[in-house]
Amino acid sequence: MPCPSGATRLFAVIGDPVAQVMAPELMNPLFLDRGCDAVLTAVEVKPEHLSIVLAGLKQIANLDGILVTVPHKFAVCSQIDAASEAVTLAGSANALRREPDGSWRGDNFDGAGFVRGLQGAGHDPSGKVVSLVGAGGAGVSVAAALMIAGARRLHVTDLSAERAGRLVDRLSKKWPGRISLAAAPDSRSDIVVNATPLGLVETDPLPFDPALLSATAVVADIIMKPAETRLLKAAAEIGLPTHPGIHMLTNQVELYREFFRIP
Amino acid sequence: MPCPSGATRLFAVIGDPVAQVMAPELMNPLFLDRGCDAVLTAVEVKPEHLSIVLAGLKQIANLDGILVTVPHKFAVCSQIDAASEAVTLAGSANALRREPDGSWRGDNFDGAGFVRGLQGAGHDPSGKVVSLVGAGGAGVSVAAALMIAGARRLHVTDLSAERAGRLVDRLSKKWPGRISLAAAPDSRSDIVVNATPLGLVETDPLPFDPALLSATAVVADIIMKPAETRLLKAAAEIGLPTHPGIHMLTNQVELYREFFRIP
Repeated sequence: MPCPSGATRLFAVIGDPVAQVMAPELMNPLFLDRGCDAVLTAVEVKPEHLSIVLAGLKQIANLDGILVTVPHKFAVCSQIDAASEAVTLAGSANALRREPDGSWRGDNFDGAGFVRGLQGAGHDPSGKVVSLVGAGGAGVSVAAALMIAGARRLHVTDLSAERAGRLVDRLSKKWPGRISLAAAPDSRSDIVVNATPLGLVETDPLPFDPALLSATAVVADIIMKPAETRLLKAAAEIGLPTHPGIHMLTNQVELYREFFRIP
Repeated sequence: MPCPSGATRLFAVIGDPVAQVMAPELMNPLFLDRGCDAVLTAVEVKPEHLSIVLAGLKQIANLDGILVTVPHKFAVCSQIDAASEAVTLAGSANALRREPDGSWRGDNFDGAGFVRGLQGAGHDPSGKVVSLVGAGGAGVSVAAALMIAGARRLHVTDLSAERAGRLVDRLSKKWPGRISLAAAPDSRSDIVVNATPLGLVETDPLPFDPALLSATAVVADIIMKPAETRLLKAAAEIGLPTHPGIHMLTNQVELYREFFRIP
């Protein structure tokens, strides 16, 4: 990487914790590759300081964009001036940019990145029955994108039935009768997605039991580290096709590039 | 430079404008050299946004220190929890760090860096008559450091007599009878310092006329770009020894390293 200078434009990824975030290693080589004098750094923000830090970041004149990760994807939505359809549908945002008039616009590419990754691996969700476990900041975006991509039915499970219910209600307004709350993935699902944090730690319990799925169900994870979670290992052992989490992120890079107007 | 990762610690230099600041090119190689996974970026902050941006930066959990440049060196003093003697004497700060208890301490190394530079070039101000033109954020720090280093007399000139008067009053409390307000550099000065911004632009008028000084007066500038200002050129042409601005900055690097506890 070139050494930053006084003229270097700034981008940030905000989260808590941030030591594990991969955005700096993905975006900085992109800037270099595109001849863009910019640097993205990870900015650690405790939830109780999100308002004050985000208010400050938005007033930094040479900071052009902000990526948002756990646990801030819901909370940032109240601090943006305009929202994309993905943000409105999901209620969460993972990318904010300064508009030419100085206002800030939010978008969410988790879902679109995840769906692009699925499609690229030959698992197009169009017309399929999909079960989603986890209605957190990324899960809600994945849910919205699966429906936009034409999923026939979506079953949503979360430890918090209230949180899952909010997502079902929100999406049912646009796709009535096709989204339902479920205690566990539907056994007839074509695709089952883990969007919970379970699997980040080796000793985590499985988010669901792949043995209860049909013999052709694709088991997808959105966890990136480790690349092969216990869930994916267990699914592969019984012969189910698996889809690792890294695809969600790598397929977002091009979307971020367009959103941030990087040449 | 290595690509920043999620674990990289953050430092910032705040100013307006920032495109010309040299701190990124000075500090980032230092981090690399000392095996410190950190990056310093330039953060452009308009004066009307200083409070909100600084409040935000102070709450970023992985941001350890802030350098301060024009025009914020005075204003940051009201937003720190503790101040060094240099800050108290000068009324301006150019470096802020987070203390282990989470509070923020301010210091000012412009003056100490400038004096170290003078001494290194064989122009020790101890016992000397010094004239200073410019009582801005860096000038006040240079004034205090010159007195701490043992200058016998200090003459202070500024377009704003009020601003120069404030500096004279402040330093006279500690060094009564040795600091005075002057309309122009004293002709008997051993060292004359430009601490105004005049010289940044080629068409700027000279901050003072070197032809009116004694034949052995050292003419020093704190402007770094261009390296040889019109003032230094004019002084050299009539045979006066000159001292360029870059020394003030390069001599601060070691002071910053200690202050920011870089190994």
